[in-house]
Amino acid sequence: MKVIIIGGVAGGASAAARLRRNDEKSEIILFERGEHISFANCGLPYYIGEVIRNEENLLVQTPEGMKKRFNIDVRVLSEVVRIHRETKEVEIYDRKNDKRYTESYDKLILSPGASPIKPDLEGVNAKNVFTLRNVPDTLSIKDYVDNEKPESAVVVGGGFIGLEIAENLKERGLDVKLVELSNQVLAPIDFEMAAIVQNYMKEKGIEFYLGDGLKGIKHNTGYSEVELNSGAKIEADMVVLGIGVRPEVSLAKDAGLELGERGGIKVDQTLKTSDSNIYAVGDAIEVIDYINGKQSLVPLAGPANKQGRIAADNVCGRNETYDGTQGTSVLKIFDMTVASTGNNEKLLRRFDIPYEKSYTHSASHASYYPGSSTISMKIIFSPEDGKVLGAQAVGFEGVEKRIDVLATAIRAGMTVYDLEKLELSYAPPYSSAKDPVNMAGYVASNILKGDNKVIHWDEIERLDKEESILVDVRTPMEYSLGTIEDAVNIPLDEMRNRLDEFPRDKKIIVFCKVGLRGYLALRILAQNGFKDVYNLSGGCSTYYPVIEANKEDSPKKKEVI
Amino acid sequence: MKVIIIGGVAGGASAAARLRRNDEKSEIILFERGEHISFANCGLPYYIGEVIRNEENLLVQTPEGMKKRFNIDVRVLSEVVRIHRETKEVEIYDRKNDKRYTESYDKLILSPGASPIKPDLEGVNAKNVFTLRNVPDTLSIKDYVDNEKPESAVVVGGGFIGLEIAENLKERGLDVKLVELSNQVLAPIDFEMAAIVQNYMKEKGIEFYLGDGLKGIKHNTGYSEVELNSGAKIEADMVVLGIGVRPEVSLAKDAGLELGERGGIKVDQTLKTSDSNIYAVGDAIEVIDYINGKQSLVPLAGPANKQGRIAADNVCGRNETYDGTQGTSVLKIFDMTVASTGNNEKLLRRFDIPYEKSYTHSASHASYYPGSSTISMKIIFSPEDGKVLGAQAVGFEGVEKRIDVLATAIRAGMTVYDLEKLELSYAPPYSSAKDPVNMAGYVASNILKGDNKVIHWDEIERLDKEESILVDVRTPMEYSLGTIEDAVNIPLDEMRNRLDEFPRDKKIIVFCKVGLRGYLALRILAQNGFKDVYNLSGGCSTYYPVIEANKEDSPKKKEVI
Repeated sequence: MKVIIIGGVAGGASAAARLRRNDEKSEIILFERGEHISFANCGLPYYIGEVIRNEENLLVQTPEGMKKRFNIDVRVLSEVVRIHRETKEVEIYDRKNDKRYTESYDKLILSPGASPIKPDLEGVNAKNVFTLRNVPDTLSIKDYVDNEKPESAVVVGGGFIGLEIAENLKERGLDVKLVELSNQVLAPIDFEMAAIVQNYMKEKGIEFYLGDGLKGIKHNTGYSEVELNSGAKIEADMVVLGIGVRPEVSLAKDAGLELGERGGIKVDQTLKTSDSNIYAVGDAIEVIDYINGKQSLVPLAGPANKQGRIAADNVCGRNETYDGTQGTSVLKIFDMTVASTGNNEKLLRRFDIPYEKSYTHSASHASYYPGSSTISMKIIFSPEDGKVLGAQAVGFEGVEKRIDVLATAIRAGMTVYDLEKLELSYAPPYSSAKDPVNMAGYVASNILKGDNKVIHWDEIERLDKEESILVDVRTPMEYSLGTIEDAVNIPLDEMRNRLDEFPRDKKIIVFCKVGLRGYLALRILAQNGFKDVYNLSGGCSTYYPVIEANKEDSPKKKEVI
Repeated sequence: MKVIIIGGVAGGASAAARLRRNDEKSEIILFERGEHISFANCGLPYYIGEVIRNEENLLVQTPEGMKKRFNIDVRVLSEVVRIHRETKEVEIYDRKNDKRYTESYDKLILSPGASPIKPDLEGVNAKNVFTLRNVPDTLSIKDYVDNEKPESAVVVGGGFIGLEIAENLKERGLDVKLVELSNQVLAPIDFEMAAIVQNYMKEKGIEFYLGDGLKGIKHNTGYSEVELNSGAKIEADMVVLGIGVRPEVSLAKDAGLELGERGGIKVDQTLKTSDSNIYAVGDAIEVIDYINGKQSLVPLAGPANKQGRIAADNVCGRNETYDGTQGTSVLKIFDMTVASTGNNEKLLRRFDIPYEKSYTHSASHASYYPGSSTISMKIIFSPEDGKVLGAQAVGFEGVEKRIDVLATAIRAGMTVYDLEKLELSYAPPYSSAKDPVNMAGYVASNILKGDNKVIHWDEIERLDKEESILVDVRTPMEYSLGTIEDAVNIPLDEMRNRLDEFPRDKKIIVFCKVGLRGYLALRILAQNGFKDVYNLSGGCSTYYPVIEANKEDSPKKKEVI
């Protein structure tokens, strides 16, 4: 059997190695358009930031290594320019020797990846405007920083790459401003969770231009001027575009392979394309979203690597399936960790899937043991059966652990009631006897069972002030340091003696720091005959970051030149 | 309704708070024999080690706090000495006022806990011999260390408490020797995994006396002499007994409540005892082992807290169940983390449950990103359907994360094939595109599918040297630094050209550092017609620690006085 693989990073390299383990005798040729295979894709921003110090560390595997270890014929700087499906041949352009030739195949695996979007705007092709996808891009940016010593940068795009670049340029001493078309960074999480991240990044000195897009870049002597749709202009020495990626489908399209509704290569569960001799994996394909069942583009390394292995197995006559993606992801931003899995509210709303949500702010480990910090967690679940649909968490320690547990729970089809019962490892340096995931389960099931009637952060502003009262049940000390507008203070521990201070003809909203004391207050009131009582879900710890983020939402004005 | 709770730590305190949330009007009295309720049980060793510096931090909740917040009548120093089931009364001895009285109940919740085993041996009641269960014990040990300034300690017992005490005394500058009756520390993990822990603790200066028990302690002027069953004698300034705990069942037994086969209080799934008005929770009860279905005693804080809540719900007429325990646990020992979940080999063998196992040694995060370390992981699974039965992991970063993921997978009834598909969060600082849990799944399923025929560490010694050959497939450099006795070196990358050096009439065992290159070597050989080829599971990284641990197994001799 002769197998040709197009694309030598994540999915392609995984497929090649697995193919050889399955079949020692087959001929395997891997074509890679670039200079490098199997490079540390996700590590590139950290080389710019000098966290990864050795360029060689970016190369996980070399063509020579693949030859020696796996007897695979790796041809770099070799672009497959056409697939002839009828004759089962590919046409290659050898960029190094400027030659064209063809190779036949029995089976073909496509792993072309995705390319960064570079909008057709004024000034984006200048030498101080960059995108980041591969090792040469990385070296260009690093060289520029090392040699030109820019003092300021504008990063366009608030996704993973944008934020990682922003952090790494900041760590290199640059003044960094971030432009994002949406009203929040990090699309996988929802607005109120992103607010926590943005506030933190502002503390670290990153400035934001949210809800604003790139209009063009003017290059003057000594500096460039980034112009936004709003009219704002930002001076900067360099610009990095991290707007997003687009699946590389031109080769597949030209060959007449079917594309999906989202513009990616269409594959079945075995990762076979519309041609039974051609498989496709990685960023270029459409996969099923495990939660909502719709087609989705998921440019992540984990799925790509797993898909490469599955495609290789199926090429060899095994019958493995890829069951869909849940979009689990994690980002380090300075010392903060942001992670999520499953669907967020925006996605569920788009597909009209009903959901309920809950917020918790738990200690990362027993608070009596030094060094704990808060994990802010949101879980989203079905109001009918409590099935977990998604989870988002932000904090400093143990964030990705909880999301990995929740990712596993989602994969298993668990409900919020199952989360209560999870038996997770506990010792004071690591967690609490009731892990933050258990706590999220308790809070969510209290909501579903009607024990905890909640009101969410975005409903506070819409309250009728005449018909409702906000009661801060924290201590007078906490209250004195700031509370929600118009709230009165009746501390939880005094409530049983002050029940007559609660009006019986109004909607009562109780709240505290994280939602726990509010819940206790609600229980006391509900069992004392108060009918219309609600607890602010997640308490001030969910509400305040949004206020804070909105407050500083327009630093534009002071930055306009 | 009047509810009495006996025992005010983990399970009892949880039950009390939940009861109040469920029912604002019921009368709730909590009796605690000791001086403190709801103290930081699991934090006690760290107060001795001065990691937790403030004594107040050990008290999570006070009687006054419970009264104010939950309107619960907490009576400390109050020992319930008898339960009169027929009249639904309890008899209390008020230790502070030296008085006896009775209280009636509608429902009773028992949370008496477990007490440390103190063997009836010579010298164990001296003032420099300690056990550790509560705050006064902790203060005694700390006072002794602070004031008497002991230079050496013997810790008897290699369980969680024993190891935590050993670490904390070592951190206080004492010379620490650890005595354990079994041939390994940490019963929840298996011998070869414990070997890694022991080797590390030896590096940190702890000395071991394994396979040896305490015979007695002689107290001389200025020092004590700990005598072991083997005849070895160890000089020490203090001794801490961490031999294990025994469920506190005397009250239940006297009241005629049924006990289980393991000696704990017998309860049904709703945590009801044989008396329908009495529930029991925590260390004193027997629960079902979630994996093997047998009765089990599990003195852990996580289960106790969850049980308290469930019992409270059921007292209030809800119908919640406790579905059994899987024994998930974690231990910090110096900078190392040891965690496990589910059943180990010892347990499965005891119950004749068939199993297969696999070992992996994976980087805690992408190795090109600074600071990664190795996670040694063992998973145990059903040879029939691949269902995960247990997991153990040892390392320095991300160990408990992987065990929590595996604990969730076990709870969901997942197989090793499901582990391959888990979509866990990946970015270079946190994991690899194929997470260590995915890798464990791949390796295990390769074993089950027959792609990777493995031989385990304990089979190496039993090999017939005439009929078999050991081949180290690592590089000549690695080989030169030490290999398994009698092994020859044929590096993986040269194998395809040196196939004629492999004998066709012998059993071939290939091995490498962790088992990956060994697997690749096995694939090459198997597909070149070699029939009798095995790969050493986990490679040298599983095999060496056992050799190392055995080598230094008898430091006794040099310590005999």
